[in-house]
Amino acid sequence: MMRLALSIIVATLSLSIGIYAADKTYEPTWASINSRPLPTWYDQSKFGIFIHWGVYSVPHYGSALPEWYWYNYNNPSEDGGATQRFHNTSFGPNFQYQKFAENFNAYIFDPDQWADLFKKAGAKYVVLTSKHHEGFCLWQSPQSWGWNSVDVGPNKDLVAMVTNSVRKAGLKMGLYHSLYEWYNPIYDADKATGQPPTQSKYVDEIMLPQLYDIIQKYEPSVIWADGDWEQYSAYWKSTEFLAWLYTNSTVKDEIVTNDRWGAECPMKDGGYFTPYDRYNPGKSIGHKWENCYTIGQNWGYNENEPFSGFQSATDIIYQLVSTVSCGGNLLLDVGPTPDGLIPWIMQERLLQIGAWMDVNNAAIYDTIPWRAQNDTAEEQIWYTTNPNTLDVYCISFVWPTNGILSLTQPLASSSTQVFLLGCTPSTACNTLSYTVNKAGSGFSIKLPSLPPTGYPNYAYVFVLKNVK
Amino acid sequence: MMRLALSIIVATLSLSIGIYAADKTYEPTWASINSRPLPTWYDQSKFGIFIHWGVYSVPHYGSALPEWYWYNYNNPSEDGGATQRFHNTSFGPNFQYQKFAENFNAYIFDPDQWADLFKKAGAKYVVLTSKHHEGFCLWQSPQSWGWNSVDVGPNKDLVAMVTNSVRKAGLKMGLYHSLYEWYNPIYDADKATGQPPTQSKYVDEIMLPQLYDIIQKYEPSVIWADGDWEQYSAYWKSTEFLAWLYTNSTVKDEIVTNDRWGAECPMKDGGYFTPYDRYNPGKSIGHKWENCYTIGQNWGYNENEPFSGFQSATDIIYQLVSTVSCGGNLLLDVGPTPDGLIPWIMQERLLQIGAWMDVNNAAIYDTIPWRAQNDTAEEQIWYTTNPNTLDVYCISFVWPTNGILSLTQPLASSSTQVFLLGCTPSTACNTLSYTVNKAGSGFSIKLPSLPPTGYPNYAYVFVLKNVK
Amino acid sequence: MMRLALSIIVATLSLSIGIYAADKTYEPTWASINSRPLPTWYDQSKFGIFIHWGVYSVPHYGSALPEWYWYNYNNPSEDGGATQRFHNTSFGPNFQYQKFAENFNAYIFDPDQWADLFKKAGAKYVVLTSKHHEGFCLWQSPQSWGWNSVDVGPNKDLVAMVTNSVRKAGLKMGLYHSLYEWYNPIYDADKATGQPPTQSKYVDEIMLPQLYDIIQKYEPSVIWADGDWEQYSAYWKSTEFLAWLYTNSTVKDEIVTNDRWGAECPMKDGGYFTPYDRYNPGKSIGHKWENCYTIGQNWGYNENEPFSGFQSATDIIYQLVSTVSCGGNLLLDVGPTPDGLIPWIMQERLLQIGAWMDVNNAAIYDTIPWRAQNDTAEEQIWYTTNPNTLDVYCISFVWPTNGILSLTQPLASSSTQVFLLGCTPSTACNTLSYTVNKAGSGFSIKLPSLPPTGYPNYAYVFVLKNVK
Amino acid sequence: MMRLALSIIVATLSLSIGIYAADKTYEPTWASINSRPLPTWYDQSKFGIFIHWGVYSVPHYGSALPEWYWYNYNNPSEDGGATQRFHNTSFGPNFQYQKFAENFNAYIFDPDQWADLFKKAGAKYVVLTSKHHEGFCLWQSPQSWGWNSVDVGPNKDLVAMVTNSVRKAGLKMGLYHSLYEWYNPIYDADKATGQPPTQSKYVDEIMLPQLYDIIQKYEPSVIWADGDWEQYSAYWKSTEFLAWLYTNSTVKDEIVTNDRWGAECPMKDGGYFTPYDRYNPGKSIGHKWENCYTIGQNWGYNENEPFSGFQSATDIIYQLVSTVSCGGNLLLDVGPTPDGLIPWIMQERLLQIGAWMDVNNAAIYDTIPWRAQNDTAEEQIWYTTNPNTLDVYCISFVWPTNGILSLTQPLASSSTQVFLLGCTPSTACNTLSYTVNKAGSGFSIKLPSLPPTGYPNYAYVFVLKNVK
Repeated sequence: MMRLALSIIVATLSLSIGIYAADKTYEPTWASINSRPLPTWYDQSKFGIFIHWGVYSVPHYGSALPEWYWYNYNNPSEDGGATQRFHNTSFGPNFQYQKFAENFNAYIFDPDQWADLFKKAGAKYVVLTSKHHEGFCLWQSPQSWGWNSVDVGPNKDLVAMVTNSVRKAGLKMGLYHSLYEWYNPIYDADKATGQPPTQSKYVDEIMLPQLYDIIQKYEPSVIWADGDWEQYSAYWKSTEFLAWLYTNSTVKDEIVTNDRWGAECPMKDGGYFTPYDRYNPGKSIGHKWENCYTIGQNWGYNENEPFSGFQSATDIIYQLVSTVSCGGNLLLDVGPTPDGLIPWIMQERLLQIGAWMDVNNAAIYDTIPWRAQNDTAEEQIWYTTNPNTLDVYCISFVWPTNGILSLTQPLASSSTQVFLLGCTPSTACNTLSYTVNKAGSGFSIKLPSLPPTGYPNYAYVFVLKNVK
Repeated sequence: MMRLALSIIVATLSLSIGIYAADKTYEPTWASINSRPLPTWYDQSKFGIFIHWGVYSVPHYGSALPEWYWYNYNNPSEDGGATQRFHNTSFGPNFQYQKFAENFNAYIFDPDQWADLFKKAGAKYVVLTSKHHEGFCLWQSPQSWGWNSVDVGPNKDLVAMVTNSVRKAGLKMGLYHSLYEWYNPIYDADKATGQPPTQSKYVDEIMLPQLYDIIQKYEPSVIWADGDWEQYSAYWKSTEFLAWLYTNSTVKDEIVTNDRWGAECPMKDGGYFTPYDRYNPGKSIGHKWENCYTIGQNWGYNENEPFSGFQSATDIIYQLVSTVSCGGNLLLDVGPTPDGLIPWIMQERLLQIGAWMDVNNAAIYDTIPWRAQNDTAEEQIWYTTNPNTLDVYCISFVWPTNGILSLTQPLASSSTQVFLLGCTPSTACNTLSYTVNKAGSGFSIKLPSLPPTGYPNYAYVFVLKNVK
Repeated sequence: MMRLALSIIVATLSLSIGIYAADKTYEPTWASINSRPLPTWYDQSKFGIFIHWGVYSVPHYGSALPEWYWYNYNNPSEDGGATQRFHNTSFGPNFQYQKFAENFNAYIFDPDQWADLFKKAGAKYVVLTSKHHEGFCLWQSPQSWGWNSVDVGPNKDLVAMVTNSVRKAGLKMGLYHSLYEWYNPIYDADKATGQPPTQSKYVDEIMLPQLYDIIQKYEPSVIWADGDWEQYSAYWKSTEFLAWLYTNSTVKDEIVTNDRWGAECPMKDGGYFTPYDRYNPGKSIGHKWENCYTIGQNWGYNENEPFSGFQSATDIIYQLVSTVSCGGNLLLDVGPTPDGLIPWIMQERLLQIGAWMDVNNAAIYDTIPWRAQNDTAEEQIWYTTNPNTLDVYCISFVWPTNGILSLTQPLASSSTQVFLLGCTPSTACNTLSYTVNKAGSGFSIKLPSLPPTGYPNYAYVFVLKNVK
Repeated sequence: MMRLALSIIVATLSLSIGIYAADKTYEPTWASINSRPLPTWYDQSKFGIFIHWGVYSVPHYGSALPEWYWYNYNNPSEDGGATQRFHNTSFGPNFQYQKFAENFNAYIFDPDQWADLFKKAGAKYVVLTSKHHEGFCLWQSPQSWGWNSVDVGPNKDLVAMVTNSVRKAGLKMGLYHSLYEWYNPIYDADKATGQPPTQSKYVDEIMLPQLYDIIQKYEPSVIWADGDWEQYSAYWKSTEFLAWLYTNSTVKDEIVTNDRWGAECPMKDGGYFTPYDRYNPGKSIGHKWENCYTIGQNWGYNENEPFSGFQSATDIIYQLVSTVSCGGNLLLDVGPTPDGLIPWIMQERLLQIGAWMDVNNAAIYDTIPWRAQNDTAEEQIWYTTNPNTLDVYCISFVWPTNGILSLTQPLASSSTQVFLLGCTPSTACNTLSYTVNKAGSGFSIKLPSLPPTGYPNYAYVFVLKNVK
């Protein structure tokens, strides 16, 4: 019975993940593109790091969305004029956004330190903004001459540097890329021809050459498309690119993409689903998805963010756990300073997550969603399961003061065992006693009583062996 | 007996603190200056905030001492050439230090937020660098025309702004002031006359006018002298200034100073002792002193500081407790960015300290050193006492896993009671049982057993009533 | 006889100038392109103003060719390393050329003043560098986003502003355009495919769109191509562009171009000849040509130019006269400061030329080359003729101290008359006496004797009526 | 008779010039100061160069007085708000004047070239603005730390560099120094005490130390005081300084000063008279004076100056001649660019003057005023005389078209001879014939008739030998 139940889970999952077939040819149609199975490394990774770094890191200001500084300046209704007031007061109305590039310095940028931090956090992949909506490229794009990090500002190929260090640390490297640019005049000219545009000069001369360029130069494992929403995928020629990517590129077996390939695509076409920022459906949805999430309230560096905007380690681990329980990956963002410092508070959060992962990662990496994602009795209790061992992981964000944790979803058998991860001394929690609730209603675990340093931090992972 | 013991303590203390006499006239001699009693507000405050903010915040780089950037650049042997290499690579050898001033912007500086943070941390006073060794003044000093925060850079009177906000929040305001300046040519000219110099033009034309100016304009509660070490106090005319300060100024009843008034002064002359940075003698020394301390490893903002340089909340609370136990005040430093952000990690530490203080401040503010500063058996256990209630506070940074905290210093009487502060629920720790050790060797407290959220954080404060 | 001689001249000239035919269709072949007659306005204009203005105006330094600053910096062998030494000393090796754009301010730029000056100088057309080899555009080129004078620097459409003012003053407006760009990565990519390149992406995506754009937006009367020499015209698709320009554009009847359309073109294909800078063949060559020339030694503003580099008004008028005598036009260059000042010395020279032209322009504007371009006896004596009046203008840069000007080329008839232009009082020179030299050897004019203010300045124009 | 007349002239002159006595002691009273004879080198020099160079050279803008940019910005009523509008549009209202210093670069500054130019112009001394009203010092003044050309901007001791080159060229070197500074807060504090101020802190701590400093470091031949007008000389302690300067300094025998030493001084106290800019009384006044004059309309570099503002060589030579005829010296100003270029138009004017001086300097250097300064019949005719040869120089700016120059002032004797300087060939003018007018009314010179290149340029100098 139990095995049967599991096979159903696996079968469901494999529908969406599919069986990877080498040397398959994909056609430039969504039906063909969507038929490609997701490379397995991605689902197994669970936790990645997002990096928002660009010219917007220099003014580092936003009432919201500091990486939209340029746009907000030109569209004061977006933020009640806050960015415009800030800019005019601080730099003056004649100060052009492009001039910020010269203070994008990366003076203390150390990509090995970054990669080491991400690895310590327990992340398995990294996604860097190769180009955000401002159009500034973190590599020497021939299509963005003079507006990239090699020609001006840092004088460095930041994409190459991060890529090399991340790979050296044993993580996968991915690249975010904005399809549109707010102010590229060639895109503007396309738009001026109608809606939808009757020409794709921007796509032919700028966007596609750039995408081909970064694939060929850096061979990323993820292309994280964005900025697609103003046009349908036909304009972006997304299927044409993806067919090439999946069929002909050197990364065809490895590459993973998301679903932001045109106004009609999210939750439907492309790769994993990430229809909007901080997407977290709260349940398993039968298709791989990703929750891109922030440590504070912002993606790019924002000195205007109050400390109260930063979430605790527990809050973030809650996102990781609830995301993984429902079949998603968490892509957690950091926004470095223009000099290349990942703000210490973000480093601290990553190391706190890493400390938790050191103890509890069995509940994360090699798991799939269990039949129940969380416990009906407690929204603070989430489940994952290891399809090989069939262990179920119950991850609780509560510790009832009466010392009894009652679970309604897992059903105990005679051989059921319960462990708590991360106790000091570990013997204290090796086998916890429990009592079976009334029929079909799970069981109640008797929690141990420990000195303050004996308890695990942030979230409590109970390993349930031989439950149904 | 007990009361006798206490009166001895009080007598000892009052020797150093003295009895304040209104309208006393002080002579410009150290004997007279030193005879002035310390205003009582200072000893009662225990915890202050130090702020290092200046032009050095702009390059925000140091292998050590980022606020010494200019000096380190010119004296590469100080840091193995690190600052010089950084500067020449990042800005070029022709880039003058003075140009950094234009990027000292204070764009997002909000002094009310700062003051609110300091108050939440439990601090009772604030000391701001009105002028560091670079000579740049945070107010519009007539003696430093064009090299102050009103004439260039922020275009703001930062001293006034911080002072107003700090006072509005109910805290005392103090000003750090460097007697010397590395590169003031008038000081250089004085030095060129001999050692000791045969003229004091710099003192007459720059230093003393500036000190008089900040006293009269801002009426600070602390003058924190520094940069005195190259000359004896005779050159600085320190006694002349202090005699005026203590006798004639509007702050004569309120003002507190330290002991950095000349090469011969530290630990001997002036006000409270702070002979070197992070001074902490580890025992009571019969004279008021101050431990100026950092959250990380640096005073000024330093993007080159690794996260590992930041101390935990527990580490900093340990400094606070061990300092107060020994009769000192803790002056804890923050280094804002040039735009005016107190780095979030520092905000977090201050709020963590504040959370601890909310629960445990009775062990800090109204206390004096007890007869024993720490427990001979455990360096992790410190004592303070309230001279009015005669309660003794035992502050432990350990929680023995066997559930027994054994104290060797306090002697139990029949009426002795022991409480632990900050338990949840509070009833759990209202009265702890203890057993008396062998004669004269203190007693052992039986620690409570609680769920993880029931324990206090960072350090455990036991209130000992009716002990000797 | 005389009339016969003249008709030969006119015939010769019309061979090269041709008869303009409206609505002719030109094919994209050099044979077809070259068959187009030169619009008559150009030959009649004789004198134009060249303007070199761009980002290179900001560092305004060169041991030679300051507009080649960027190139010289990267290729120190070009100028013995002078630019590199200057740059590294003045700005430091990390200072990127692109940053100069922010100091290209045009703060005091007043195009009406410019146009007024050019008109006063006697010029009939103006040619502005719409884009030099650095690639920086003086209009908002969509193909050069962020590297043009609207997006950065002046924030102004300088092409439009100059064009409007020049036309308002009644002059023709032309645009210089560099086909290649030193550092455009798309051009580099084309070059990397071979020599000749096997692709023309730069031409298709950058160069041609820009040429079409300036033709359509500004409808110039001249396109002054440059920077062609690295490739043959096949790469540049020059004939394709010129066929469109001559057949389909709105300026097809008006536009004039030069011969810098490919490595093989100069002195052969395109429009008027200008095979190298300061081209002046010293004789009539049977095809329209242009002498682009400088007031000092430089095209762009160069503060490193010594005063001795500036030529006198007489020197420049000599170029004008010798050029026009031989069938060329003079295109005289000015190099404004980044703020928009045409250096006063250049203004003075232009006004000096204008003063001369006010008196003597009949010898220039409506003339064609005479059968002899200069007098065999004196290289300082040049001839032009008016094809309508058949007057011959003898322009002498000498005034023999013996008071006799002997001419060997013109042959006197019985009705021959000689006037000198610009005497004060004018009556003094209305009819000069002369004596006929020995047969076929011209005649000798008796020069007048006048007070110092009575003589014309710079060059003496003798009108010869009824000579052969 | 003639000799008698001359001795009267010499006697009159020696009254004002006095007889120089070595080692005289001067008291700090105007009576004593004024009794000092003028060192003879100054009167013999006749022609000097003034240099206005400072931070104001960077914005180089003025509707008038560009060197008053800072003041005009803060006092818009001074120029109808022109500077304020320019600044706010160009740099923004937050751009501090002090920031201009960083673009005061002196990149191409070559003091040997400057000195060579001044020498070629025929100047005998140079006066450089060591400090203008903005307070920025062109040497490393200890009293102006961080606001001088060594600490910021050029990083060079410009006073030393100009001084060395000027002396190497054989010219005398002088220093302009502004007594007041617009924005020195110590001066402001003095002013706040009353009018006249009751304290002289600015004078004691800033002004006098600076004056002593430049005298001792650079040993100038001229101190050109300015900015005195807001206070009486008692405040400036002018007599105290001058008594030291004339009695004790190393330049006591050489130094020359002017009369701008206090509100009451001009035309009365100190050295030579220069009561206002461009002072030219038009007659001999019995005391040495100086006409400080501009080539265009401005002292400092001003890109806003129209070409029409520049005077011709003849205009400037007219000032020189009319000034020297009346007993003055001409101090002709140049305003270099921030990079160190003396604008070419100014170089041209200086070289034109120099060309005239090469031919005609006998009429200038060794002369004194003649009994008549100009000819009553013609304001365009001025006289000087050489006290040794008793030759009279008649300098005419007219050349009557009738060929007769009629003079009413000089009386011919039987031995009277008339020469014209600078004819080509020189023989043409060696002895001109003249006819005596009716009794006591001078005589009429018959002017020669020459080819255009035979006449002198700009102004005609007739040497009158043996006239009365």
